[in-house]
Amino acid sequence: MATVNYTTPSPFTEKQSAHVTDYRHQGYLIGAGLATANKKYNKPVPEDLKVVNVALFALGRAGSIHLKNIMSSPRMCLKYVVEVSRAKLKAVAEEWRLAEEQLVNPENDEKVFKDPSVHALIIATPTYLHKDLVMRGLQAGKAVFCEKPIAEDMEDTRMCYQLAQKVGRPLLCAFNRRFDPSFSHLQQEVHSGAVGRVQIVKTVARDSPVPSIDYLKISGGIFHDCAVHDIDLTCWVLGEYPTHVFASATAFLPEVAAINDYDTVAFTMKFPSGALSMTDLSRNAVYGYDQRLEVFGPKGMVAAGNERPFPMTASTVKGETQPPVYHSFPSRYQQGYIRELDHFCDVIQGLDDLSVTAEDTLRVTTIASTLEKSVISGKMEQVVY
Amino acid sequence: MATVNYTTPSPFTEKQSAHVTDYRHQGYLIGAGLATANKKYNKPVPEDLKVVNVALFALGRAGSIHLKNIMSSPRMCLKYVVEVSRAKLKAVAEEWRLAEEQLVNPENDEKVFKDPSVHALIIATPTYLHKDLVMRGLQAGKAVFCEKPIAEDMEDTRMCYQLAQKVGRPLLCAFNRRFDPSFSHLQQEVHSGAVGRVQIVKTVARDSPVPSIDYLKISGGIFHDCAVHDIDLTCWVLGEYPTHVFASATAFLPEVAAINDYDTVAFTMKFPSGALSMTDLSRNAVYGYDQRLEVFGPKGMVAAGNERPFPMTASTVKGETQPPVYHSFPSRYQQGYIRELDHFCDVIQGLDDLSVTAEDTLRVTTIASTLEKSVISGKMEQVVY
Amino acid sequence: MATVNYTTPSPFTEKQSAHVTDYRHQGYLIGAGLATANKKYNKPVPEDLKVVNVALFALGRAGSIHLKNIMSSPRMCLKYVVEVSRAKLKAVAEEWRLAEEQLVNPENDEKVFKDPSVHALIIATPTYLHKDLVMRGLQAGKAVFCEKPIAEDMEDTRMCYQLAQKVGRPLLCAFNRRFDPSFSHLQQEVHSGAVGRVQIVKTVARDSPVPSIDYLKISGGIFHDCAVHDIDLTCWVLGEYPTHVFASATAFLPEVAAINDYDTVAFTMKFPSGALSMTDLSRNAVYGYDQRLEVFGPKGMVAAGNERPFPMTASTVKGETQPPVYHSFPSRYQQGYIRELDHFCDVIQGLDDLSVTAEDTLRVTTIASTLEKSVISGKMEQVVY
Amino acid sequence: MATVNYTTPSPFTEKQSAHVTDYRHQGYLIGAGLATANKKYNKPVPEDLKVVNVALFALGRAGSIHLKNIMSSPRMCLKYVVEVSRAKLKAVAEEWRLAEEQLVNPENDEKVFKDPSVHALIIATPTYLHKDLVMRGLQAGKAVFCEKPIAEDMEDTRMCYQLAQKVGRPLLCAFNRRFDPSFSHLQQEVHSGAVGRVQIVKTVARDSPVPSIDYLKISGGIFHDCAVHDIDLTCWVLGEYPTHVFASATAFLPEVAAINDYDTVAFTMKFPSGALSMTDLSRNAVYGYDQRLEVFGPKGMVAAGNERPFPMTASTVKGETQPPVYHSFPSRYQQGYIRELDHFCDVIQGLDDLSVTAEDTLRVTTIASTLEKSVISGKMEQVVY
Repeated sequence: MATVNYTTPSPFTEKQSAHVTDYRHQGYLIGAGLATANKKYNKPVPEDLKVVNVALFALGRAGSIHLKNIMSSPRMCLKYVVEVSRAKLKAVAEEWRLAEEQLVNPENDEKVFKDPSVHALIIATPTYLHKDLVMRGLQAGKAVFCEKPIAEDMEDTRMCYQLAQKVGRPLLCAFNRRFDPSFSHLQQEVHSGAVGRVQIVKTVARDSPVPSIDYLKISGGIFHDCAVHDIDLTCWVLGEYPTHVFASATAFLPEVAAINDYDTVAFTMKFPSGALSMTDLSRNAVYGYDQRLEVFGPKGMVAAGNERPFPMTASTVKGETQPPVYHSFPSRYQQGYIRELDHFCDVIQGLDDLSVTAEDTLRVTTIASTLEKSVISGKMEQVVY
Repeated sequence: MATVNYTTPSPFTEKQSAHVTDYRHQGYLIGAGLATANKKYNKPVPEDLKVVNVALFALGRAGSIHLKNIMSSPRMCLKYVVEVSRAKLKAVAEEWRLAEEQLVNPENDEKVFKDPSVHALIIATPTYLHKDLVMRGLQAGKAVFCEKPIAEDMEDTRMCYQLAQKVGRPLLCAFNRRFDPSFSHLQQEVHSGAVGRVQIVKTVARDSPVPSIDYLKISGGIFHDCAVHDIDLTCWVLGEYPTHVFASATAFLPEVAAINDYDTVAFTMKFPSGALSMTDLSRNAVYGYDQRLEVFGPKGMVAAGNERPFPMTASTVKGETQPPVYHSFPSRYQQGYIRELDHFCDVIQGLDDLSVTAEDTLRVTTIASTLEKSVISGKMEQVVY
Repeated sequence: MATVNYTTPSPFTEKQSAHVTDYRHQGYLIGAGLATANKKYNKPVPEDLKVVNVALFALGRAGSIHLKNIMSSPRMCLKYVVEVSRAKLKAVAEEWRLAEEQLVNPENDEKVFKDPSVHALIIATPTYLHKDLVMRGLQAGKAVFCEKPIAEDMEDTRMCYQLAQKVGRPLLCAFNRRFDPSFSHLQQEVHSGAVGRVQIVKTVARDSPVPSIDYLKISGGIFHDCAVHDIDLTCWVLGEYPTHVFASATAFLPEVAAINDYDTVAFTMKFPSGALSMTDLSRNAVYGYDQRLEVFGPKGMVAAGNERPFPMTASTVKGETQPPVYHSFPSRYQQGYIRELDHFCDVIQGLDDLSVTAEDTLRVTTIASTLEKSVISGKMEQVVY
Repeated sequence: MATVNYTTPSPFTEKQSAHVTDYRHQGYLIGAGLATANKKYNKPVPEDLKVVNVALFALGRAGSIHLKNIMSSPRMCLKYVVEVSRAKLKAVAEEWRLAEEQLVNPENDEKVFKDPSVHALIIATPTYLHKDLVMRGLQAGKAVFCEKPIAEDMEDTRMCYQLAQKVGRPLLCAFNRRFDPSFSHLQQEVHSGAVGRVQIVKTVARDSPVPSIDYLKISGGIFHDCAVHDIDLTCWVLGEYPTHVFASATAFLPEVAAINDYDTVAFTMKFPSGALSMTDLSRNAVYGYDQRLEVFGPKGMVAAGNERPFPMTASTVKGETQPPVYHSFPSRYQQGYIRELDHFCDVIQGLDDLSVTAEDTLRVTTIASTLEKSVISGKMEQVVY
């Protein structure tokens, strides 16, 4: 009876709470009316903003994710979906019981901007349409959420942010990875000193499935399409921007070589604090969407690994097998997509400040361009902001 | 250049699909209008059943989970919430923007049963109210979803099922664990022969947080409150019911001993096929809600482990730490709750048969009572169905 | 530069030590002359016992493991190997460069007992020869290490221990699992209160590969051949012996049924402290030698999982696969075998007390017999010591 | 009885073998005389080489590891230990029962070279002594095993290899990581096409504990002391040498900055096949010796993770904790050290060819120097072999 004399306090008399990482539990409490989404802010929400009325532009991959999240959130009300394909509009209208007046062809989108009940736009169109929609939305006094990039070049991006500042409406560039529960928890841990002064940050981003060649042609290239996420993640975790960057890249796929892009990239960044970062990218990971983050310092290491649907194992003579990691971004960043919309609502309701700043967005673009340049020059390039 | 001669087909020419386990991806496709929930059945859904109108009874722990899931699903429309606490009604009405006419005091619940637009009832009240609501609902021609147990005793339970059969409406006893993605995938793997003829099934179910003593007093005892889930899971995985069962139990917590219940149980079941099962239960696991399932046979083992919010690790001089597993059932069985409602909709829409039968429910209760008896007798008891 | 102000002490000025679990590091220090095996005891070792001279009886599975460990240890010197098969003797003599005079046929084993330079016997013969060798060894004043069981029945076992006490020589029953690094660390953690007062102990022991039918015929049955290890492990972790035990068992393999044995067993034990234990056994786990231990209490859970050669993973479209766990006991308990001999040397050199007592061995046998009985009776049986 | 009709062949009639990764099982078979170390080669070993007589030079960290492995192997016989510290000699003589005539002061080491019974030298002295010992050994007709680097500069290294070729004796540069069971299995998997044509190779090497400043001063710098291992590992896995390399580095520790070295490095290499590699190094990982290898290609990924003593977990309210990974190289590469000596014996006995070639060693040095240069130049440098 070696342990019979160990006693513990009665569990009935002490509060047993969920760990800070259990975001589902927090969601349960909110859904049950036992906590409120804005509780942490302890601020009132204006009556007319209690439900944020939104218009969604485009039903591509990101757009249809936003559609589902808008429809499932009690904080948002979908006023309009603007989409050029009538077939897509009909399919989602059937699934989500949307009324005909909610479905808008881009030709008639003026009514969206003119409708004073619309608080915000969610822009998920092809990139070349971003700037125009962002500018029109801001001019109409709407809050704007826009998939990256805000515009096709730096100048237009800057112009959008200047307008946002002028009209006093938020413009959120949707870097969804910052809102991923594991990455955001890790970032907080790092900022609170979990590893001490950071020495190394590493990220992995390997796409799954491979995008279509049609998409790759208009993607802006792997640095502006993919690397920007890892650049943003790294800078956000470190709390600084790099002074020098270096990239090496290869096109293993002939189809990618043919369009003068790369499918495989390795890049390094050097930061004012002395910290070094390393990232590797691929367009085609057959084992699932591979997204990892690791931070190292004198007190240890924190790392966010890949996620899979559930931790089942099958043990046979050949070994022990788990299901693959999530197939693609809609699964892997399911929570990130939900939470970035929540953050957008927080900003609109006056509860929080924009977490992705104009400076962040502009600098990330500059860094991506500098990396691209370094592949050609074979040199570590200084980043000129 | 050891591997340069290995070639693989172009990824652009072959379809890269999500693995069968990636249920989030399937949800994404449905939400995007790229797949339909009932696609697998390839059957039409009657127009008036395309949206299932439901009334929810009670806003306790399970009830508030169902509320959130109803509100987030395009397949269901919440007509009424029946709840005795006006404060709870107001809290969820605020969160979910419910109209006053949707909020019903149990005294006025007759209008729910009389409303012909209501297709179905979701019953999540205290147990002693189940039978009456189930009977009234069935008599009113509603489909009924009821938290376990259907009624307080075997006779009433049988009566409910007989009425369901008579009126031709489905009565679903909500054994949520069957709908958990990992358990249901594992059951399918086992039934398709992954481990061969099953020899051993093991389950673990340790509660977190410890329930209140007030709840424990009305819980029906650990065998009828907890063990029923593991009994059902085990029988469902094996596809058979036990002939003999044996349990041993202890009350380590004085508060539990004081109400003549147990907080810790170990039980074994023996099945006609020769298979043996083992389960251990606890009312108080401080490290989170511990729910595991393992199946062993001549070809190997499949096991579903505990789930946590994300796979972050922190490495220090003391070791490598991951966040705790999910705190409690709302987090752990979040998907199970969503999917059992989906199944209920499938049944109502004529797409699928009830997966939890009257026989299942009745036998599970008989087995739980027999296990309880064996603790006293100190014998392996034969189960008399 | 979010973390640039975090400072940590210079690593050059503070001692960085290996964690207590890194037994390889301790072995390295000893091998390098930087620590001594008996350092922890801080006692002198008599000059003539600095090297323990041993005679090994039999070269079966356990015997050949002991041979390797004796030959690799600077603390032991192999004087004789006694083995009936001349072929086996020749094979190991070739491998280990043994001289002819070290090889002994059992017919001539008298010289082993008469050789005053021999300090100890390592007995790894078939069970029916144990008692005689143990008695002769003790009478000749040798320390005796014997594979379980010490003798074929309780009476003979008791007689052996009585003789050991009379002649003042140690008799060690080789319960190798106690010496496994993970199990012994876990036992220490539990005894120091890691989980508080223990409520549940679980063990799994599934054999790999399946033993031959010839072996099974003389094995003494699954309870005396296998269950004894789990009984011992459980009692040792708990620090108490059970009052009541219950087992259920099946023979799935016709060959096993034909010899009136079982290949699959589930058993439960109840302890004076209220603790419950559960064990499941199988003779045939195709995915490797499955040996697990789990201890649960009010402060949490500690668990020792299966071990594999290395943590390599292969990620493909089908999932993520690790190599199988160790194939069988020589791999899995490699360290346990080394450490039980080390303990035996410690005892002989006067540094430590026998860790497996006569009472432990005798009671484990009684419990195994009682479990066997309960399968037939279908009752939880009281253990009469 | 869902699975009762699944049948599997009797396990008694089919051979159940250990998986190829279970190197302990192979060791057990050899130790038991059931397999021989040279079995795979199926070649005879000359009688006078059945035991390889060796002389060990120096008892530093690597030397004392080799001492233990020599003493534990039946394939080797230790003739002499040459060491300048009499205290060290005495300590290991006590531990390993060495005779006085086996202990040699470097001043008298001529007898080692003159002793015709000595087949081979194991050189583990400080680097500046390597070349002289290697040359003398080869000239005396001994096989030579030498810790890296073979000599202090390229010219001397080349001279050593030329002499080895001239006298026809093997000269093995001890890149121990190639002999690590997980890395060597992974390399074989990659070469057999497990991931297809390799696109990315990543390694991590973070030291633990931090070396002393005295050692760092004579270490040759982090590129020649540490990076060489990762360069060798990467080239060996890829089967090619890089054309261009780039490194970035920081000294976070003031003590390291003071000696003009770096403690943190990130480097990238580009290979003729288009493959990219990334490595990060640190001198100080407090959570243990962090050594990882990952290989990515169009068919998936294989990765070798960190190893720990055993997979114990402790689950508490704070999460689930495992013991730290191995503290340092003697633990982590315990098997690698054993296996590199085994390979050396294989070469001496005429069973196998040298696995680390002169070209490998020379090129690795060239690459390390080029990386060092690129830190200063800020450019990707071409490697001129």
